[in-house]
Amino acid sequence: MAEKKIPYKIYLEENEMPKDWYNLRADMKNKPAPLLNPETKKPMTAEDLAPVFCDELIQQELDETTAYIPIPEEIRDFYKMYRPSPLVRAYCLEKKLQTPAKIYYKFEGNNTSGSHKLNSAIAQAYYAKKQGLKGVTTETGAGQWGTALSMACSYFDLDCKVYMVKCSYEQKPFRREVMRTYGASVVPSPSETTEVGKKILAAHPGTTGSLGCAISEAVEVATKNPGYRYVLGSVLNQVMLHQSVIGLETKAALDKYDVKPDIIIGCAGGGSNLGGLIAPFMGEKLRGEADYRFIAVEPASCPSLTRGTYAYDFCDTGMICPLAKMYTLGSGFIPSANHAGGLRFHGMSPILSKLYDDGLMEAVSVEQTSVFDAAETFARIEGILPAPESSHAIRVAIDEALKCKETGEEKTIVFGLTGTGYFDLFAYEKFNNGEMSDYIPTDEEIAASIAQLPQV
Amino acid sequence: MAEKKIPYKIYLEENEMPKDWYNLRADMKNKPAPLLNPETKKPMTAEDLAPVFCDELIQQELDETTAYIPIPEEIRDFYKMYRPSPLVRAYCLEKKLQTPAKIYYKFEGNNTSGSHKLNSAIAQAYYAKKQGLKGVTTETGAGQWGTALSMACSYFDLDCKVYMVKCSYEQKPFRREVMRTYGASVVPSPSETTEVGKKILAAHPGTTGSLGCAISEAVEVATKNPGYRYVLGSVLNQVMLHQSVIGLETKAALDKYDVKPDIIIGCAGGGSNLGGLIAPFMGEKLRGEADYRFIAVEPASCPSLTRGTYAYDFCDTGMICPLAKMYTLGSGFIPSANHAGGLRFHGMSPILSKLYDDGLMEAVSVEQTSVFDAAETFARIEGILPAPESSHAIRVAIDEALKCKETGEEKTIVFGLTGTGYFDLFAYEKFNNGEMSDYIPTDEEIAASIAQLPQV
Repeated sequence: MAEKKIPYKIYLEENEMPKDWYNLRADMKNKPAPLLNPETKKPMTAEDLAPVFCDELIQQELDETTAYIPIPEEIRDFYKMYRPSPLVRAYCLEKKLQTPAKIYYKFEGNNTSGSHKLNSAIAQAYYAKKQGLKGVTTETGAGQWGTALSMACSYFDLDCKVYMVKCSYEQKPFRREVMRTYGASVVPSPSETTEVGKKILAAHPGTTGSLGCAISEAVEVATKNPGYRYVLGSVLNQVMLHQSVIGLETKAALDKYDVKPDIIIGCAGGGSNLGGLIAPFMGEKLRGEADYRFIAVEPASCPSLTRGTYAYDFCDTGMICPLAKMYTLGSGFIPSANHAGGLRFHGMSPILSKLYDDGLMEAVSVEQTSVFDAAETFARIEGILPAPESSHAIRVAIDEALKCKETGEEKTIVFGLTGTGYFDLFAYEKFNNGEMSDYIPTDEEIAASIAQLPQV
Repeated sequence: MAEKKIPYKIYLEENEMPKDWYNLRADMKNKPAPLLNPETKKPMTAEDLAPVFCDELIQQELDETTAYIPIPEEIRDFYKMYRPSPLVRAYCLEKKLQTPAKIYYKFEGNNTSGSHKLNSAIAQAYYAKKQGLKGVTTETGAGQWGTALSMACSYFDLDCKVYMVKCSYEQKPFRREVMRTYGASVVPSPSETTEVGKKILAAHPGTTGSLGCAISEAVEVATKNPGYRYVLGSVLNQVMLHQSVIGLETKAALDKYDVKPDIIIGCAGGGSNLGGLIAPFMGEKLRGEADYRFIAVEPASCPSLTRGTYAYDFCDTGMICPLAKMYTLGSGFIPSANHAGGLRFHGMSPILSKLYDDGLMEAVSVEQTSVFDAAETFARIEGILPAPESSHAIRVAIDEALKCKETGEEKTIVFGLTGTGYFDLFAYEKFNNGEMSDYIPTDEEIAASIAQLPQV
C-alpha cells in the first residue's frame, strides 16, 4: 500500500477536534500521591481546597477515575478561535540535518498568548465565571501564563490580578503591556500589597522575586478577597487534564496518516505541556496497547527530575500552599540569574513525577547555550522563532535525529513546540552577542536546598 | 438548500493552495502608468532596472499582459511552512457588536515575521538566489518587511543588509534582534555607510530618519556592490503580484462555502496587502463578472489617497529611484512623530492609485486613537493582538458592521488582518496609559510638500 503523502502541516477539521479531555490518572495503576494539608499532613479534601480553587476545578483535581471529561461547549467554542493547532512535519529541518528520522512538532504558539497555556487558562476562567466569581489571581514568571489568563478573563469578563516575578516585570515591559491590553492588573512580586510579600521583602530587601513568592502572594489575595479564587498554569492535575487537548489532537492527526511515533519529546518546567502532549500515548503504554519512548527535557540550571528528589514539598516559597509529592529541588531553590530560558519551577507535576519514578518516562537536562543554538537553527530553517522553553525540546529532538543519522534508523520523532519567543529577545540578543553562558548548580547547592524539605 | 455551516477558521488543503500568482494588470483596460527614468523622464526599460533589481523580478515588474504567473515549486514549498493562512469567521466579534453583518478576516500574522510581507520576501529572495547573487539590500520602517526578508534570506542562504529607519531601530530593539537571529545585518538609517546617508546627515543632523532615506541608502549599497540587488516590500507591481496569494486563498476559501463578500477592506500604506487581498475580486469586477465595494483604509496622519495628488513622484527621499505615477503626499512628506501606527509611506502603489483614480475603489482615513480602540476591542474578543497597521482595517470593518446593525442589512464583510502587534507594544502602552493623541496634517503642510513634486 502506498504511504499517504504527509502535508507540511496537518490540521484537523473542526469536527475532529476533541470533545473530551483525557484524564491520564484513570489509566495509572500507581496513582500520584495526593496533595497534603500543610498543617495536618492529611490529604487535602475538597473542603480544604474550596477557599483557594474553583469548585468544579477541585473536582477535576481530585478525580482519579473518570478517563474522559467532557469539554464544555463554551470552551470548545473558544478553542475553535485558535485550535486545532497544526502538527507540522519538519521537512526542512530533516533535510538540513540530513537525517532519515521523520520529525513532527505540535505547534502551540499560534495564538496571541504565544503558548499552550491558553488551553488551561480558558478552562479555569470558564469555571470561575460559571461559579459566579468576580475574578481570579495568579502568578506569572516569563509571562506566558499571565498573558493567557488575561486573554481568557477578558473573554469571560472576569477581573484578573497577576503577580509577576519582579525581574521579569522589569525585563519584559511588553509582556506586562499585553496583559494590560487584555485588561489585567499586573503587580511586580514581591510587593507591599500582601502580608507574605511584605515579609519576604523585609527578609530579602531588594530581591527580584521568584515564582514561589509570586504564588504565595496570589494565593493570599485570592483567599482574602470575597469572590476571588487562585488559578495556576502548571503542576496541578487539573492543568494536565486541560492540556491533554494537545496530545489528543496530536494523536488524531498522526492516526489520520497512520503514523506511529517512536519518541515523544517535551520540555518540562512544571510539566503542563509535556503532561498534555504525552497523555493519550502514555495511556496506551499503561494499557499495554503500544510502546513509546517519552523524554522530558529540563534546563541544566533547574534540573528537578534529573537531580531533584522525590518527596513532599511546598509549591510556593511562602509555604502556604498544599504539599505535593513530586521531584523537587526544594521550594527555596532559585535558578541562577544567568538562566534565561524559563522552566524555573523547583518542582514537577505529581503525575509526571510518579510516571518518571515508575520508569515510564526518561529525562535529560540541557545547557542553555546549546538550547539557543538549536533555537536559532530551527528558526532559520523552519521559520518559527521558538520560545526558549520550547527550544529545550528542539535541542533533544535534533540530537535524537542526529543519532538516527549515525545509525541509519528511520525513527519518527514528535516534539512539542510550546510557544514563540517574541518576548524573549533580550535573551536572543545575549546569545547573538556571544554573551550567554551556562550554569550548572553544584551538588552542594542542591543538597542545601533539599535539606529544607518539610517533614511529612 | 441549507446553508453550509461555516467553521471558525477555513483552512484550504495543501493541494487547494494557489499554483499561480494573479497579475491584475492583465485585466485592467486602463493600465497603471509606467515607471520613468528620473533623468530622461522616459519609461524605465529592463536594462535601466537591471543594476537595481533581479532580472526575473524586472520581467514581473514590467509584465502587463500575463494574467497567471506560475509560482515556482521552491516558493510553494516555503509557502507550505506557514500557508495557507486561515480565513477566520469573526463569530465572537459579530456577537459582541450584535450586528447582522457576517465578518471574515484573512489572518496573515501566523508566521514569525508576523505579517503578510513574507509572501513577497520569499519570492524576491528566491529569484535573487536563482540569479546567483550574493545578497540583497532593503529598508525597513516598523520592521515587518525587514524581518520577513531576513527569514527568506536565511532560508536561501543569502546575505541580507537592512537599513532600518533610525527611530524604529532605537524604539524597537527586539525587531532588530529578530533580524539578527535570522542572520541579517541591520544598520540604523541614515548612516555614515553611504554617500546619500552622509549627505542627509549633513543636511539634517540628528534626524531620526524616514522610509524614503532608508530606501535611498539601500539602493546605493545594492548598486555599488557587485552581486547585490535591491528589494522592496511594497508599492511595486511585482510585490502586488506576489501578494495576490492572499486574495486567491481568500477567494478559494469563500468559494468553498458559497460565500460572496459585499465589502472588502484593507489597510493601505504602500498597498502590498490591500493590492494582494483584492486582486482576484477586482479582476472579476473589471471583467464584469461580479461587483464588490473595496475600501482602502489609511492613517489620517499619512493620507496619500484621500488627500494626496495623482502625479509622478520619487519613491525615495534621495531622489535616486525611478519616478512612479501614484497618489502621493510628496517624497519629502514625513508623518508626525506622534504617529505610531505604521503605513508611513508618502505614496501608494501605482496599480492601486490607478484603480482609485478610475473610481473602482474607495478610500477613507482614520485617526489613530480610534484605530487602537478598535485594536483593543478586537484583541479582547477575537484573541489576536493585531498590528496597528492591520487595526486600520479592523476600525472600518467594525464601522461597516455597525452600519449594518442600524440598517439591519446582513452584509458580508471581509478584511485583511495583515499581522500581529507583538513589536508594537510601546504604542499599545501609550494607548493604555491614555497618552496617545491624534494628528492630522494641515492643508498647508500637504500643499508645501506636494509643491516639491518633480516636473515631468
